[in-house]
Amino acid sequence: MMPTQRMGAQTVALRDPPSVLSYACVGGKFEKQGPLGNCFDLLEEDSFFGEKTWEKAESAMQKKALNKALEKGGLTASQLNYVCAGDLLNQCIGSAFGLREAEIPFLGLYGACSTMGEGLSLAAMLIDGGFAGMAAAMTSSHFCTAERQYRMPMPYGNQRTPTAQWTATAAGCTILGAHGPGPYLTHITTGKIVDKGITDANNMGAAMAPAAYDTLSAFFRETGTGPRDYDLILTGDLGVLGHSIVLDFFRRDGLDLAGNYQDCGLLLYDREGQDMHAGASGCGCSAAVLNGYVLPGLREGRWRKVLFAPTGALLSPTSSFQGESIPGICHAVCLSARR
Amino acid sequence: MMPTQRMGAQTVALRDPPSVLSYACVGGKFEKQGPLGNCFDLLEEDSFFGEKTWEKAESAMQKKALNKALEKGGLTASQLNYVCAGDLLNQCIGSAFGLREAEIPFLGLYGACSTMGEGLSLAAMLIDGGFAGMAAAMTSSHFCTAERQYRMPMPYGNQRTPTAQWTATAAGCTILGAHGPGPYLTHITTGKIVDKGITDANNMGAAMAPAAYDTLSAFFRETGTGPRDYDLILTGDLGVLGHSIVLDFFRRDGLDLAGNYQDCGLLLYDREGQDMHAGASGCGCSAAVLNGYVLPGLREGRWRKVLFAPTGALLSPTSSFQGESIPGICHAVCLSARR
Repeated sequence: MMPTQRMGAQTVALRDPPSVLSYACVGGKFEKQGPLGNCFDLLEEDSFFGEKTWEKAESAMQKKALNKALEKGGLTASQLNYVCAGDLLNQCIGSAFGLREAEIPFLGLYGACSTMGEGLSLAAMLIDGGFAGMAAAMTSSHFCTAERQYRMPMPYGNQRTPTAQWTATAAGCTILGAHGPGPYLTHITTGKIVDKGITDANNMGAAMAPAAYDTLSAFFRETGTGPRDYDLILTGDLGVLGHSIVLDFFRRDGLDLAGNYQDCGLLLYDREGQDMHAGASGCGCSAAVLNGYVLPGLREGRWRKVLFAPTGALLSPTSSFQGESIPGICHAVCLSARR
Repeated sequence: MMPTQRMGAQTVALRDPPSVLSYACVGGKFEKQGPLGNCFDLLEEDSFFGEKTWEKAESAMQKKALNKALEKGGLTASQLNYVCAGDLLNQCIGSAFGLREAEIPFLGLYGACSTMGEGLSLAAMLIDGGFAGMAAAMTSSHFCTAERQYRMPMPYGNQRTPTAQWTATAAGCTILGAHGPGPYLTHITTGKIVDKGITDANNMGAAMAPAAYDTLSAFFRETGTGPRDYDLILTGDLGVLGHSIVLDFFRRDGLDLAGNYQDCGLLLYDREGQDMHAGASGCGCSAAVLNGYVLPGLREGRWRKVLFAPTGALLSPTSSFQGESIPGICHAVCLSARR
């Protein structure tokens, strides 16, 4: 028997699409200097955010993002039935320590840079399933914590390849509720792991693009819609190369996405002025673009329907050292100004 | 407005309690030698499971656990709408690489050793919410991958403190469905992060015990039941010290759990005969005890109601090096032979 909300193997439709109640995002120095600089609720020039280590700074960012989202919505932590959160740090300590004092039932996620999509999906299904009145989705990344965990010690001044992306120093939090003014989360397509054999950890856009194509294709197929039905289609952090690969894949299927397809990794920085190579990456990239740019834009009537599809690369330094290719994943949610 | 399934701040009741459809567990040499040795579906003497590295071995264990659970249930991967999985490895590569070829919509979790509880909770809510017909929860741990990631290189032959626990080399998978022969998952209490300031990473039982007490107390309070209403109450991997702390905490509240309270970490090995110090730990510990011992016991009528409450320590080596204490979490689910 097919469950009631299911539209296909990967897609569900929400019965009573949960509403975005509030949202907030926090960024650092380079995010402030970028084209979306005025979209952040809080910006901090100091990469330590007043803490002693960058890891503690990343936790502080999550705490600030949650508190700001609660404040903007006139809400308190005790009203949230769940917070679905994760990050890129080993054992997701950005989220665990950021939420340590919040006293909210915690569902820890690991979806790499797809986490904002995974968190929104789960929060929405928990609400629509009758298990929560309100739930939050949150994630973060920090250039310095990611650089030293995944690549080189910061003082080394590591040279970056042309396809490398810049991990955003940012956190974003979205609070969903059963009832509210919108935008509404209407459909969810949960990604499968897709691995096409890319092994270059400095070319994650190319590694994740097949997953983005796979999930977006499933979304269109299972909802019976096409790219033209959305005002904006937004992948997570594929950067310039991954973005063009996704365009190519759809072109082969006879679909032209060029008019309304963007990537969060191409929006956050001025790639040339800021010398960011292939664009932004990190869980915080799509989280900041969603909470600072997309959700306000939907509220203000700039768009009616947005397909938000953050992408994650499910590798670790260990898996790369052991010669493994890079598995990718992409979780898509449809956000609509009206129910 | 209170959502329909909610019994309190942390607990939900399932409308139509999802049924366990199938389950499987995989273990290594020491698990084979332990008192639950005959509970495993697959046991392997070789810690590499035929692979080139221990990390690949851990992925292989997850793959085997999933495939065995599917086979035992007469199911195929394409029937699963979601797999909720995670592990202890950095970036959860045990799950990502283990599930790379499975083509099942993947929700990556990080709940440390509480992952089996978190996965069961989400799988059950996705089914009961009408979003899935079947979903799997899975996790793993491996002594060698954990030891070298969290502690010392294996050839170093690290000396262990008396309170140290032994990370289980095990994986477990439970498949839930909307309809089936039981046992049924009737209630879920999602844990908050609890941190009482313990900083000794070799004494995780003590660090996690307050979280176990917090979640079990919430469960009893919000469901209006008491310890005597359950034939077995089982925490995840607190070991001998954590187990006695939980007993103490409840004794102060006037509740005696001694008769029916056990800990998975005390069941997996013969602590004295196998010299396992404070007991077993790792995501695979509670996953193996659940899938190899508890679920078959419920089917065979050994117990009618079991409260399964795996615990996780949300630390990382980095957080410990930076002087942080250890946040704990515990997710509880009630399993009942009848609906």
